[in-house]
Amino acid sequence: MSEENNKTALVYGGCGALGKTFITKLKSENYYVISVDLLPNPEANFNVKVTELTDWSKQSIEVISQLERSQLANKDERLDLITCVAGGWAGGNAADQNLVKSCDSMWKQSVWSSLICAQIAAKFLNPKGGLLQLTGAVPSLGGTPGMLGYGMAKAAVHQLTKSLAEPGSGLPEGATVLAILPVTLDTPMNRKFMPDADFSSWTKLEFVVGKILEWKGKNFTNRPQNGALVKFVTKNDKTELIVE
Amino acid sequence: MSEENNKTALVYGGCGALGKTFITKLKSENYYVISVDLLPNPEANFNVKVTELTDWSKQSIEVISQLERSQLANKDERLDLITCVAGGWAGGNAADQNLVKSCDSMWKQSVWSSLICAQIAAKFLNPKGGLLQLTGAVPSLGGTPGMLGYGMAKAAVHQLTKSLAEPGSGLPEGATVLAILPVTLDTPMNRKFMPDADFSSWTKLEFVVGKILEWKGKNFTNRPQNGALVKFVTKNDKTELIVE
Repeated sequence: MSEENNKTALVYGGCGALGKTFITKLKSENYYVISVDLLPNPEANFNVKVTELTDWSKQSIEVISQLERSQLANKDERLDLITCVAGGWAGGNAADQNLVKSCDSMWKQSVWSSLICAQIAAKFLNPKGGLLQLTGAVPSLGGTPGMLGYGMAKAAVHQLTKSLAEPGSGLPEGATVLAILPVTLDTPMNRKFMPDADFSSWTKLEFVVGKILEWKGKNFTNRPQNGALVKFVTKNDKTELIVE
Repeated sequence: MSEENNKTALVYGGCGALGKTFITKLKSENYYVISVDLLPNPEANFNVKVTELTDWSKQSIEVISQLERSQLANKDERLDLITCVAGGWAGGNAADQNLVKSCDSMWKQSVWSSLICAQIAAKFLNPKGGLLQLTGAVPSLGGTPGMLGYGMAKAAVHQLTKSLAEPGSGLPEGATVLAILPVTLDTPMNRKFMPDADFSSWTKLEFVVGKILEWKGKNFTNRPQNGALVKFVTKNDKTELIVE
């Protein structure tokens, strides 16, 4: 961390659509940015490369050991923000031939990443106002009959958020954990696969990032309470935040 | 299935404390019983042996292919009851060295088994009143800071229950899915590890099994609605059922 950077952030999934938007914005606000992903994000100050995709423990050790060799080895350097924006989508109901494979990949993409972010938070999150932000999904608050694996993985992330906010979770006291719950994000991938959808009901990436950085700012007055699941509901290009 | 058996049931986890109690009771009520577990349950009419413990897809294929070679190959033979009572418990917060391992084992024990039971239900559950019963946990309705993996796995089972109850889930129309949510079951293992606990607040296995078979009986008037999460809350040796 160089002297001109006054804040440090880690983006898990720094090469996804939301991750890239996050890093660009963080850089513009003079953050020192650590990106965690399969590939490096060239905008990041430091890249943690993930190669262990089939063993949860190995991925955890791989990521944390790289962080232990980074600037975070200096105990005065702590993360002000950890954002977990890794994830994906797959459908499949109980009669689907590929159900188990899709459930397995949803678990790996959403839950492995979220739990490893919780471990990173336990070690490196700033106890003075640090924020861990996970990513859930509005549909998963109810049943998701056509996408069983996605629904379960995001439900697990929601419950993890509640757990981490309680005393004894292992997170530093004074830190906050929140989950954002989008419906559909306006990403290039979603536009490609749903070209006929109503884009005015999709949530803009810049809006999401801006809101999280607002919660991360010096003025915490607008920050939802610790453990909150914050729904991002967009209609006619306007996004409303509703705490579940 | 011999002619004297008028009902067929499958118990996933037939060698656990709850599974054994289930099978004894089912046999006494003249069910044809299929047990799925690592070891055979000698009381069962048919045993499906699970050997694939590290690959979700392989376990699913292993179990379903054995069922396809059983009496269920005859399309007139359908399961009236599928009960998923596999599971376990492990603690661990975000700072725990063994966190990932404990989360991984909780996922495998509770979620792999529940999802494979959903697949079995899609193929073999009786569309005329068949019941799929999964097993959640009361603590997981809120945060579980000292047992992150257990909480996430059971939260996933709760959400899966809601998903499976909705149209398009792949389950036969006319079937019902429910989750039982115990607090603490009165098992030999729990007595061994918590010898000083207040056993009068633990739920008896026979009570749980009796209640589920009541829901499975010809008179469905007491059956909670499709998709319900049914809490079993015991105080002073009396158990109250509360639908979440």
